Amino acid sequence: MQEDDDEGSGCDTAVLLAFTILGKRWNGALIDALKRGPLSFAALRRGVTGISDTVLADRLGELAETGLIVREVEPGPPVAVSYRLTRSGEELLPILRQAGEWAVNNLLAPAERRSR
Amino acid sequence: MQEDDDEGSGCDTAVLLAFTILGKRWNGALIDALKRGPLSFAALRRGVTGISDTVLADRLGELAETGLIVREVEPGPPVAVSYRLTRSGEELLPILRQAGEWAVNNLLAPAERRSR
Repeated sequence: MQEDDDEGSGCDTAVLLAFTILGKRWNGALIDALKRGPLSFAALRRGVTGISDTVLADRLGELAETGLIVREVEPGPPVAVSYRLTRSGEELLPILRQAGEWAVNNLLAPAERRSR
Repeated sequence: MQEDDDEGSGCDTAVLLAFTILGKRWNGALIDALKRGPLSFAALRRGVTGISDTVLADRLGELAETGLIVREVEPGPPVAVSYRLTRSGEELLPILRQAGEWAVNNLLAPAERRSR
């Protein structure tokens, strides 16, 4: 994969591709929030502090379009809509967990360790 | 780490922390671009297609402040400035690599696999 690079100074095209999803605010948090099972729009909004309704709706639409989540409708009454991870989405979970561990070890650690 | 969650619908605080860095456009790409060694501003701009000078300068400042890269000045003449990963930054590389592999397997794969 690394042979695509431009004279060794380019970044990996696979990493760039990953960050078309992961590099958008809230996407990592939303995927992580769904790790224990399907959630409604309202539960996601509560679980991901600070996200607005409009942005949440946008992100859920994009994640569904990219195949990381699916929107499921349970016919009512009352109709219940929920969102769950697809297998693609689930495969991101161990990577998100490692990123979380890295963050705890590196972003919360004393500065002298970080600047080595 | 998962005990912090709000009724099982919250997302992990560690993952949220990681995405204060990774969830900003270009940061993943910039860290990845530095994986083979220090690069100048100009080389980074060439390596990370599409980034503007202003945004690149902003991101490099933030990544240095967070302890993921360091800015090094080689006294000249001519003065040479370069950026390199710290140990914290290097520890992200295997995670970025896995995210890249995930992307290739999941974002480029046939849609029928992704919607399972």
